[in-house]
Amino acid sequence: MNLDHLPYGSAMIDGRRVALVRLDDEHAAQLNGPLFADGSLDALLAAGRDTWATTRAEIRQAVERESLPVVNLADVALVLPFTVADYVDFYASEQHATNVGRMFRPDGDALTPNWKHLPIGYHGRSGTVVVSGTDIKRPQGQARGAEGAITFGPSQRLDIEAEVGFVVGTGSTLGSPVSVRAFSEHVFGICLLNDWSARDIQAWEYVPLGPFLGKSFATSVSAWVTPLSALNFAWTAPPERDPKPLPYLDDGDATCGLDLQLEVRLNGDVISRPPFATMYWTGAQMLAHMTVNGASLRTGDLFASGTVSGPERDQFGSMLELSWGGRDPIALSDGSTRTFLLDGDEVTITATAPGPNGPITLGDVSGRIV
Amino acid sequence: MNLDHLPYGSAMIDGRRVALVRLDDEHAAQLNGPLFADGSLDALLAAGRDTWATTRAEIRQAVERESLPVVNLADVALVLPFTVADYVDFYASEQHATNVGRMFRPDGDALTPNWKHLPIGYHGRSGTVVVSGTDIKRPQGQARGAEGAITFGPSQRLDIEAEVGFVVGTGSTLGSPVSVRAFSEHVFGICLLNDWSARDIQAWEYVPLGPFLGKSFATSVSAWVTPLSALNFAWTAPPERDPKPLPYLDDGDATCGLDLQLEVRLNGDVISRPPFATMYWTGAQMLAHMTVNGASLRTGDLFASGTVSGPERDQFGSMLELSWGGRDPIALSDGSTRTFLLDGDEVTITATAPGPNGPITLGDVSGRIV
Repeated sequence: MNLDHLPYGSAMIDGRRVALVRLDDEHAAQLNGPLFADGSLDALLAAGRDTWATTRAEIRQAVERESLPVVNLADVALVLPFTVADYVDFYASEQHATNVGRMFRPDGDALTPNWKHLPIGYHGRSGTVVVSGTDIKRPQGQARGAEGAITFGPSQRLDIEAEVGFVVGTGSTLGSPVSVRAFSEHVFGICLLNDWSARDIQAWEYVPLGPFLGKSFATSVSAWVTPLSALNFAWTAPPERDPKPLPYLDDGDATCGLDLQLEVRLNGDVISRPPFATMYWTGAQMLAHMTVNGASLRTGDLFASGTVSGPERDQFGSMLELSWGGRDPIALSDGSTRTFLLDGDEVTITATAPGPNGPITLGDVSGRIV
Repeated sequence: MNLDHLPYGSAMIDGRRVALVRLDDEHAAQLNGPLFADGSLDALLAAGRDTWATTRAEIRQAVERESLPVVNLADVALVLPFTVADYVDFYASEQHATNVGRMFRPDGDALTPNWKHLPIGYHGRSGTVVVSGTDIKRPQGQARGAEGAITFGPSQRLDIEAEVGFVVGTGSTLGSPVSVRAFSEHVFGICLLNDWSARDIQAWEYVPLGPFLGKSFATSVSAWVTPLSALNFAWTAPPERDPKPLPYLDDGDATCGLDLQLEVRLNGDVISRPPFATMYWTGAQMLAHMTVNGASLRTGDLFASGTVSGPERDQFGSMLELSWGGRDPIALSDGSTRTFLLDGDEVTITATAPGPNGPITLGDVSGRIV
């Protein structure tokens, strides 16, 4: 039992929704009291930073005193732990954006001219965010074949994107930007996220208004939300930014990066180990950018980093990159190979973060293609 | 008093939220009963098509019997009538897409290759959808100046987009596409919508993932939702589609277009009269496309048509088009001119639809720049 972590979740137990903190891989403690009356984390998220701290201290004491009912995680069905308000997906890994640019625009610059000036992002579909463990139905849609003919049918290039999601607790007022320094006042915690992507649908639809059906069929998040207060030992310096960001994006000397080590497993085989510390834009910068135009935040807003890809080939966070657009199949231990996902494939993303007494293990996010 | 229309809204009266139907320009009747207990339209939307019909018949009878409390609209503050779940914005006017393509890609084809194959759309920010009458704060953000220098400050090219929004009542299951023929089973009604747009912010940010901060600062919707049942005389044949849409987008011989006549007023002057009947893609096609990948619908989902622009110059639905990118200033009756919006400017979009006893007037959507 690692009391340094205690991530929050939600489960159906005997037909009733119950809020939980995870104690170890197999056990969780039930949370009671007014903040958890509906079994979700919504009221806790809305309560603000001071309450996050006091509630956490109380829960930790109660766990130490063993005064909370313990459930066996094998016996319960974990559900989406909070109500997702708006979902935004960024594109904050320089290596990922470079890889995609090289593949899709081989004759141009890999990065678009705006990329190092602002964290590029777009809104996704919050109604199709699902909890880890939910089966993912292969989407159908339009695509354009190699000879330019329009095709319709199940996606032939179904992919993953290994990402980290930031969960907003405290909202903000319309018309009032949120500064980089207000990050920990608004963001409650993080989760792991798999932004399932149908590359063939996406490639045909995305000009000029961006990804739509290629992404909107499902986005999986981990069942456990790790509060920022469990990540005090995980902050690290982000990469040097050149050119220097505009003042509203300047995180100064702050250690705004997060040293999370992700792993992507396909049918049990580790196919990638993306290092989150390499992300060019930090969560604080994403938050400041998302609100600089006056857009307000709501409790439950979820914003994700975009695919996490490190500089090495075995650190890429999507199969598009790992197979270099399908050119280089990925070898699995059963002797088979993959370029994109086959029906029945199961993808699990895990991550660890430095903690005061050794690494903590974030809740994983997994899904099987059906 | 026109009983053919009876659009639904919501207001704060004596500190309490109350659901209403509008009787005429100055009066509304209060709605009571369990469906309207929270003062919003949320429960009615979720109740489904049969309940929409029976409730409407009951309300009409009650209005005729004068058994509902009547309020003077001058005395109440109208609020957002339903909880917006996901907000999607389409790009369904051929004239608008052609105009924008000519301005932004003068050396290429005006329409992108996908435009006539699918209704292009993207997700917007549902948390910043505001009710008509809400002041619009000019957004700040990054842009790229004429010489390529990055600038930061208030948008200098603040614009409108005159649109029609479709309000989803009945949700759908993840993994199950909704057909064009199920439109009236899922869509409760329509509203007018102004998709405020900061063209300078949008131009710099939108490649490759689409509009983000250029749109997310505010989207205004009319305070009144017109149910489809008030639009029985407004259906019309959409324009001929060439090439023939794929089967899932084929609305056959159906009269799936809507003959709405919009008007855009700037500080009281009519600057455009966009005809909604010219829209290339219909609401039923947007709905079918949005869900063909298996994406689910939720009660309160809002999807908008995109800017409504007719073939004539005085039918364009944005100032970008009316001023042709700022080249041709728009003359106002006070002797001033506009290319984009100035502080203090007020924009109001109105619309009429054919009814059984003459045209009905949709609830307008207005906002002032501050």
